Amino acid sequence: MCNHHTHPTTRALSVPTAQASFVTTTIQRRELRADDIAIDIQYCGICHSDIHNAHDDFGRGVFPMVPGHEITGIVTAIGSEVTTFQIGDRVGVGCFVDSCGECVFCLKGEEQFCKKGVVVVFNATGYDGELTYGGYSQHIVVKEQFVLHIPDQLALDIASPLLCAGITTYSPLKHWGVKEGTKVAVLGMGGLGHLAVQFAYKMGAEVTVLSHSANKKDESYAFGADHYYLTTDPATFQELAGQFDLIINTVSANIDVDAFLSILNVDGALVNLGLPNQPDQYNVFSLFAGRRSISASNVGGIKETQEMLNFSAQHNIVPMIEVIDASQVDQAYQRVLDGDVRYRFVIDMSTLV
Amino acid sequence: MCNHHTHPTTRALSVPTAQASFVTTTIQRRELRADDIAIDIQYCGICHSDIHNAHDDFGRGVFPMVPGHEITGIVTAIGSEVTTFQIGDRVGVGCFVDSCGECVFCLKGEEQFCKKGVVVVFNATGYDGELTYGGYSQHIVVKEQFVLHIPDQLALDIASPLLCAGITTYSPLKHWGVKEGTKVAVLGMGGLGHLAVQFAYKMGAEVTVLSHSANKKDESYAFGADHYYLTTDPATFQELAGQFDLIINTVSANIDVDAFLSILNVDGALVNLGLPNQPDQYNVFSLFAGRRSISASNVGGIKETQEMLNFSAQHNIVPMIEVIDASQVDQAYQRVLDGDVRYRFVIDMSTLV
Repeated sequence: MCNHHTHPTTRALSVPTAQASFVTTTIQRRELRADDIAIDIQYCGICHSDIHNAHDDFGRGVFPMVPGHEITGIVTAIGSEVTTFQIGDRVGVGCFVDSCGECVFCLKGEEQFCKKGVVVVFNATGYDGELTYGGYSQHIVVKEQFVLHIPDQLALDIASPLLCAGITTYSPLKHWGVKEGTKVAVLGMGGLGHLAVQFAYKMGAEVTVLSHSANKKDESYAFGADHYYLTTDPATFQELAGQFDLIINTVSANIDVDAFLSILNVDGALVNLGLPNQPDQYNVFSLFAGRRSISASNVGGIKETQEMLNFSAQHNIVPMIEVIDASQVDQAYQRVLDGDVRYRFVIDMSTLV
Repeated sequence: MCNHHTHPTTRALSVPTAQASFVTTTIQRRELRADDIAIDIQYCGICHSDIHNAHDDFGRGVFPMVPGHEITGIVTAIGSEVTTFQIGDRVGVGCFVDSCGECVFCLKGEEQFCKKGVVVVFNATGYDGELTYGGYSQHIVVKEQFVLHIPDQLALDIASPLLCAGITTYSPLKHWGVKEGTKVAVLGMGGLGHLAVQFAYKMGAEVTVLSHSANKKDESYAFGADHYYLTTDPATFQELAGQFDLIINTVSANIDVDAFLSILNVDGALVNLGLPNQPDQYNVFSLFAGRRSISASNVGGIKETQEMLNFSAQHNIVPMIEVIDASQVDQAYQRVLDGDVRYRFVIDMSTLV
């Protein structure tokens, strides 16, 4: 048994250099501070942004790198000033592990916009100057305010994708005011899309899935979608003209922005969750005709993440996952890139030896 | 004297074919209906969109055309069912002269989004199948619901640009919630910009003018601007990074969207009022970093136009105009295209003979 307080080392899956295969290694976690929580990691989800970082697609990777920001596990130790967690608690950690706590955004619970700069869980430098290593490991030490309670109704493997994919889709649905009767379109039925559909449905929205292939139709309906349209069929855009209050775009590729704007209602918003490599184009007229807008959303704050977890427990939001062993991560990355996953890989950390 | 009720003809300035010079001609106005108001036009402003239409830039011009949608004048006759106007009232007519009155948008007072299609004051076909002719004329007949009261404090020549430029700038400031302390940037100091600055200032905003030249600095401060920056200076974008809640873009040319997004605060919006010929480009990352948005706004409804006129009277909003004779319209069009007007031409219709 590892005791974080005295032996803060842990086994981890590490990428030695950009695009290299994973190796099993040992990393150090920090000594427990007064406001820290030590966690035995049981599961960690695989997110497309893990792959972007491991492949250094953004050119700011520091290697060796330990990805992972959809972490669930059990509290094994708490610092002397910790008040909201106990040893044995079922907990989660998402994208963020620190922020200034004082700026207008932190005070609003929107740490993602922290003026000092939010510290992400891996491939970042903490305020203490230390590199952060993520959740593809067996233990982690995280500041109390950045640890989430996992409600009892949510199994720790299934809950894992909620820590990033969940909040990434929940937050914009809340921000853009989705409620009973709102017409929401979800573009792309992947790890993000299948959660966006469930959340929107449980918020009372009329949900339409827009997909480039017909093969996720039945599952979309099972997740709560009311309609399913093919983006490859030009008739889709005629039929849906002016329909939607909100389009949640989970696709990272460039899209025909004007075509999607044309299916928004007055004051409708096209909200991007992914980051295409190239700029997108739009004609101002597409916005002008209905005061439409183009925007984007980046995860969500800690308070809202807890709200999302509670909502998920209450409304039976169930990420559909494929649990894999630690030895299968390279293969899983390739399958994510090939679009061959329904809908999220989760690594069973007990298999990391 | 012309009596609309029995001789519904009027002198008008007409463009015989696309891009032709104006000629003076006689057109017919309709017989007064029960809900109509007949107006002696005293002034009509010149808006850039008049020029777009007269030059058939959008390819949907019907000629001969009588432009003009910033109309002020005096009521000369009222239909039998008219209740809110009397002969002698000082009135205005803007972009719209009819809408279905029944759809969700009309009921909200947002006739610009009417589902049946709002009827604009010129170069359009009314629900009766008749072509509409605009305000470059001496008389007009307009449905009661589309006629505005001009408050006594506003001179009819000065009030004229409020009917389009005024509501076009007022509406987005209200829609995007400008209030005490909101940080508003106005891009472009022309007919629209000089009103946007005044409105934003009188709503309590901290107003920054972004201009490509230094020569409107003093006037900007006089209109209420707190700051003035040159868009030609790259340091502007560094200095203003993350500053604004709202950018009102009055420029019709294509802009460097990412640069302007970078000076928006979290949840800030870049709102376009003009229509560039070519598509604009943006990088999703520019939106993502602060949940920023790109949108556009198209005039405003009748109820809000009346509100804007009352606000203008109450807060001493003063369009800066150059009054011209009917014989000078061709020359004025060229000067608008050359950017040589401070800030709006208004035609004195008594000079049309």
